[in-house]
Amino acid sequence: MDRWLVNGAQKASISLEDRGFSYGDGLFETIAVRAGKCRFLDAHLQRLQGGCSRLGLAEQPTDTLIAELVAAIAHSKHGTAKIIITRGCGPRGYRPPTNPQPTRIIGYQESTAGSPGSSGVQIRYCTTLISRNRQTAGIKSLNRLEQVLAQSEWNDPGIAEGLMLNDKGEVVCGTMTNLFCSRDNVLLTPNLSECGIRGVMRQQVIEVARAADITVKECAIDKRDLMHADDLFLTNSLLGLITVAELDGRRYSPSALTTEIKLGLCALGVEECAA
Amino acid sequence: MDRWLVNGAQKASISLEDRGFSYGDGLFETIAVRAGKCRFLDAHLQRLQGGCSRLGLAEQPTDTLIAELVAAIAHSKHGTAKIIITRGCGPRGYRPPTNPQPTRIIGYQESTAGSPGSSGVQIRYCTTLISRNRQTAGIKSLNRLEQVLAQSEWNDPGIAEGLMLNDKGEVVCGTMTNLFCSRDNVLLTPNLSECGIRGVMRQQVIEVARAADITVKECAIDKRDLMHADDLFLTNSLLGLITVAELDGRRYSPSALTTEIKLGLCALGVEECAA
Repeated sequence: MDRWLVNGAQKASISLEDRGFSYGDGLFETIAVRAGKCRFLDAHLQRLQGGCSRLGLAEQPTDTLIAELVAAIAHSKHGTAKIIITRGCGPRGYRPPTNPQPTRIIGYQESTAGSPGSSGVQIRYCTTLISRNRQTAGIKSLNRLEQVLAQSEWNDPGIAEGLMLNDKGEVVCGTMTNLFCSRDNVLLTPNLSECGIRGVMRQQVIEVARAADITVKECAIDKRDLMHADDLFLTNSLLGLITVAELDGRRYSPSALTTEIKLGLCALGVEECAA
Repeated sequence: MDRWLVNGAQKASISLEDRGFSYGDGLFETIAVRAGKCRFLDAHLQRLQGGCSRLGLAEQPTDTLIAELVAAIAHSKHGTAKIIITRGCGPRGYRPPTNPQPTRIIGYQESTAGSPGSSGVQIRYCTTLISRNRQTAGIKSLNRLEQVLAQSEWNDPGIAEGLMLNDKGEVVCGTMTNLFCSRDNVLLTPNLSECGIRGVMRQQVIEVARAADITVKECAIDKRDLMHADDLFLTNSLLGLITVAELDGRRYSPSALTTEIKLGLCALGVEECAA
């Protein structure tokens, strides 16, 4: 990151006694900054506050977060902002302090706008499984070792993403994306009640689809479902909607439904979807 | 901690771009320092190296680790040492750097010797489940949010520990301990192939038991098994062996087998077992 703010102060380090480091006891958000503004900021803050509530942390001061994001972005137009909230410092031991003083971290990194991916990407299945736990499902906590191990599985730059399954054989998500597939004009996406992260771009897709009277089902999806799908796409806050060209020997082309969703996201300001 | 060394230098902070902080991409060990020495150091280092191998990290330089532990402990006699190894700094994104430069952290905190717990502790069941994943089972990674949430469930100081179950209803471990029970002169402990941490004191207990021709079974254990056990005990590197006096309305007294194990640990230098 080009700049970091820790509890409002410019600083690029954190105490070794911060529970975010000791135990991954915290949450983060990764936000696209486009035309100098945080895209879908309300949705990111809402997920962050939901995660805080799940971890038993107090609601974070939204005004302060926004002011610090503005300060970190400064006059930059295009980049990636990160918010990290941890339970703060504490004595050794898993037990949270009675009155935690959360650590609030804002990061910003400038980048140049990429050209929209046009022809779709090749993806693969990972062998690293994603574990199921309803209590941590959906939130974007700092416990991300499974995603790290999954991304370690390949280094062919021609493979853009790996899909992760749970131990029931359900395809849950990509290592850094959410997954959708369409079949017979219905949009399907994995149910995330047991694992996975509820992506902000995923939520936008669901809303765009519903506004266009497209049926969206959050359900269990397995490899066979993907083999028989009309097409697949991935979503991510920074990348928007990425169509899949190939998975497991099958080739896909974007369906009319996916094209419609992509146009809808484009209208919401997801410039990566302007192909 | 009273003292911290980061890659050999006195320092109490870490970069915000360290993957240990970003993703919990690392491991730790918590070691009892007794009479100025790290107890069961070889076993701790062996588990650490095994964890490194599992995460795809190079073997850590044992001589350096030992020299830094000695430096951090200095002239102190009694306390807790901590080793943390992370995959080091890297650019944003889950994918590990091609040539990671691991961060090596040593911490030390002095403490006064406690009096051995004599009469056993009261424990409870937690509702927070521990998730199953063979790829991360056994190792002591920095992803410990489930243990944090489990310890948040109670604050009655009369309850010493909470037991965690997996989604199959198997009792796996305490939040910070391993679990044993005895029945008909056989020692049972949860099989940790799917979740839980392979505790160093747990391993000592297994070795002491086997040396004494006590049958040890690592197997699935459920609440009913604990209800029908002769007795229960917990193990932890710092606390040694802790007998359980009460769980779920049932009271337990140490069996002859447990007393024998405790004497065996005592002979190995686990002074907390001298009751």
